Amino acid sequence: MITRENTRDRLLNCALRLFTLHSFAGTSLQMIADNLGVTKAAIYHHFKTRDDILTAVLQPALEELRDLIAYAESLRTPHARADALLVGFVDMTVRHRELIGIVGTDPGVGHALSTHPDIAELFGKPLTLLAAADPGPAGEVNASLALSGIACTASSPMLTHLDDATLRDHLLAAGRRLLGLRAPRRTLTAA
Amino acid sequence: MITRENTRDRLLNCALRLFTLHSFAGTSLQMIADNLGVTKAAIYHHFKTRDDILTAVLQPALEELRDLIAYAESLRTPHARADALLVGFVDMTVRHRELIGIVGTDPGVGHALSTHPDIAELFGKPLTLLAAADPGPAGEVNASLALSGIACTASSPMLTHLDDATLRDHLLAAGRRLLGLRAPRRTLTAA
Repeated sequence: MITRENTRDRLLNCALRLFTLHSFAGTSLQMIADNLGVTKAAIYHHFKTRDDILTAVLQPALEELRDLIAYAESLRTPHARADALLVGFVDMTVRHRELIGIVGTDPGVGHALSTHPDIAELFGKPLTLLAAADPGPAGEVNASLALSGIACTASSPMLTHLDDATLRDHLLAAGRRLLGLRAPRRTLTAA
Repeated sequence: MITRENTRDRLLNCALRLFTLHSFAGTSLQMIADNLGVTKAAIYHHFKTRDDILTAVLQPALEELRDLIAYAESLRTPHARADALLVGFVDMTVRHRELIGIVGTDPGVGHALSTHPDIAELFGKPLTLLAAADPGPAGEVNASLALSGIACTASSPMLTHLDDATLRDHLLAAGRRLLGLRAPRRTLTAA
């Protein structure tokens, strides 16, 4: 049982590494098998298609995003919802720098995910939550700029010299300034 | 002579459309020939490789970017340089929405361009010019967030309902707020 779990985890880690190096479209099941030193049959024991592997690689981050959206939506005001979403989104993108890199920039991944309507719907919600704090075109543009800019910056190869904490603090400050949000008072008390 | 120019332009327009639909890596010379209703030999008459086609598709925008950087670098203060770069960059991304979409999100394009050191160097300059207005990690993060966010937002499929002028105004306002830049006085006089 432990061995089986380990094989699955090793497979997912290897797949993520290969997707990052060669893009999703450029990575075959055979390449994953070769890299792990196993047969293609061993891969098929765990996953039927490359699309299943992608979904499994993304699953933990998708669960986090679902939880974050549910938490933000439970708050009372549009401002509180937008700020909670922003704080959680910055934290997630910095922790998943590598994964965000492939989701955000690989059209093969975008195409594969577009066949999952539930994931496409999930990806639209952060934009809706941020834009709702300032209804109208300015709010839409600011929300889109903040989310895409945070995702690209967290995964940028030009900023690998910044540690996670520095990156997180500056991304959050930039997002709040852009969206006209203030830190909630309890954050100040906790600091 | 006119016919030859027209064929070349038709070829480049067709290539851009196919790169957008199928990604750069997913578009073959044969697909371009089939779409134009010509033979592969006719394509080879104009371009030796797919990489040559990509460079030619990007050439007008690359020239504009070179001119913009040269203009910005000619200004006296880091603030004036950053603001001029931002104004021009917003204008360019909105005018080239479709092209920016493929350059920014297609890893095949990124890989092809990385083999042109002069283009890679060119793409690094806007970040340097914006970050110089506020030296340190905050300035680097803000510059990266602004540039990537503007490029993604201008080419976002979620914002196609916004016309170019609306998009341009809000992107510029957002970029200035994010980077702590003010519009130069002569812009106010001209308005």
